[in-house]
Amino acid sequence: MQQALRLCTEVLLQPGDQAWMEDPGYPAARRILQSRGTTLIPVPVDAAGLDAAAGRALAPAARLAYVTPSHQFPTGVTMSMARRIALLDWAHEAGAWVVEDDYDSEFRFAGPPLTALAGIDGPGLDGQGRVIYIGTFSKTLFPGLRIGYVVLPPALVTPFAAARAVMDRFPPSLLEGALAELMTSGAFAAHLRRMRSRYRTARDLVAEAVTRAAKGCLTVTVPDQGLHLVATLPADLPPTAASDIRAAAGTEGWLLSETRLIPGGADGFVLGYSGHSPAALKQAAARLGAAAEAYCRRHAAALVK
Amino acid sequence: MQQALRLCTEVLLQPGDQAWMEDPGYPAARRILQSRGTTLIPVPVDAAGLDAAAGRALAPAARLAYVTPSHQFPTGVTMSMARRIALLDWAHEAGAWVVEDDYDSEFRFAGPPLTALAGIDGPGLDGQGRVIYIGTFSKTLFPGLRIGYVVLPPALVTPFAAARAVMDRFPPSLLEGALAELMTSGAFAAHLRRMRSRYRTARDLVAEAVTRAAKGCLTVTVPDQGLHLVATLPADLPPTAASDIRAAAGTEGWLLSETRLIPGGADGFVLGYSGHSPAALKQAAARLGAAAEAYCRRHAAALVK
Repeated sequence: MQQALRLCTEVLLQPGDQAWMEDPGYPAARRILQSRGTTLIPVPVDAAGLDAAAGRALAPAARLAYVTPSHQFPTGVTMSMARRIALLDWAHEAGAWVVEDDYDSEFRFAGPPLTALAGIDGPGLDGQGRVIYIGTFSKTLFPGLRIGYVVLPPALVTPFAAARAVMDRFPPSLLEGALAELMTSGAFAAHLRRMRSRYRTARDLVAEAVTRAAKGCLTVTVPDQGLHLVATLPADLPPTAASDIRAAAGTEGWLLSETRLIPGGADGFVLGYSGHSPAALKQAAARLGAAAEAYCRRHAAALVK
Repeated sequence: MQQALRLCTEVLLQPGDQAWMEDPGYPAARRILQSRGTTLIPVPVDAAGLDAAAGRALAPAARLAYVTPSHQFPTGVTMSMARRIALLDWAHEAGAWVVEDDYDSEFRFAGPPLTALAGIDGPGLDGQGRVIYIGTFSKTLFPGLRIGYVVLPPALVTPFAAARAVMDRFPPSLLEGALAELMTSGAFAAHLRRMRSRYRTARDLVAEAVTRAAKGCLTVTVPDQGLHLVATLPADLPPTAASDIRAAAGTEGWLLSETRLIPGGADGFVLGYSGHSPAALKQAAARLGAAAEAYCRRHAAALVK
């Protein structure tokens, strides 16, 4: 993802150009765009995903929109078909690019997936599609593999290859060969199937453990997809509540506030449930829930005094 | 190498900054610097390597010098100790950076190696070293591994790591682990030893085959080090001679003229002798030599007419 988005900024943007970013959204993507001098435009996300009409109102002439439509980070919402169409319509009118980061799409636990933006987009009046589709094997296999991929409109293939050639020339052929064999042999599909059931179990286990221990202090949204869930604190807590609770529990992961470009709203936690044993996940979730409960209790007591 | 040099340009240079480049020199390095808007300053190379005094005369305030001191590309000369000191003196006075690309240093066939610039440089008045040492496993193992390394003055470690983090985050940990095991087990050292003798044989075989077939039309410099040699044509041939001969022979590789920033001087061929069987190398060398001989003969006949 990192390298693909970095290539997008190098090939498609000039420093100072505007880019729509989901708010809340993925901090790593923000950092990459900012490192190349891009001006970030926070576009609100609701239950239907990124609001293209709000984006138009804020920055109609932006050059790029970075979106996670199949499973928004961090909220987990899926972008509705109406919103997808609205986003693509804007991109074609504005001559802007839509970068579709389809991370975690392999781990869908319920409901039919929506077709990717790259799948519903077609050539516009200029004969050109506007979607750059980014995927990764970091979640489906392991992060240390460092292999991702990008599906480009034909006209962008040559400029992307040229930009890559002066970045690190080409990817490691040994790992690419091993991955290709894993995919053609069917072992990758079997692995995904096994992992999907394992992650669904992990999701339920974390959601239950954190909810039970928090005794009403955390509101957990159980996602249909992906490897993380969001647990939200009550809105009336002090601004340091979430980081204090995280420190007390000794857990890791983003705070909800860290994913926001425009501060505000209730804080909370983005809880990943991959990469650890069920026992360790359950324990950490219970610890976080208990720390939140203790914080809420103390806060209520302080208010009564 | 590519990624390391790219990181150097991002961390150390602003677009428009001047950089000393060896002339003739490595075209891939030029392309990376140019892709980031660097102004290239061609600095002549003679039998003692890059001429720092000439560099000072041309661009005293350059911000960076890219050099291949242990085995200059393409000429194969080793930078003398006096020139190394002169280069480092300039870098400390100018507050400039020296990027030392130590490619092929593992394949030395004769004579003692000179200590790397990074080994003789010390902290200047500002307490800081000025050399960035770049190495690669592309030649010692294979190019598709895509693992290189860079040895940095301490003050540069954090900015380089930050620049890398927004480029592709981190290197593939699986390959790094395998490589570390290869090195600690001693297998890498044994491999280098075997390869050194194999490449020396390949060097002699190519030098002999091309010299014999060319019947005086090519002057071959047999290098003490590395995986390529230079074969030079007579100075009085037409400008397209080298590319015509390469096309007629059906061989690959750089022309000497392609490694020059300032055109001029006799053209010729940079002949690599790694990655192919001895039989294939010998055959290709003989083909190139014969094509050169035929060209020289036709050219002489044309001049006589």
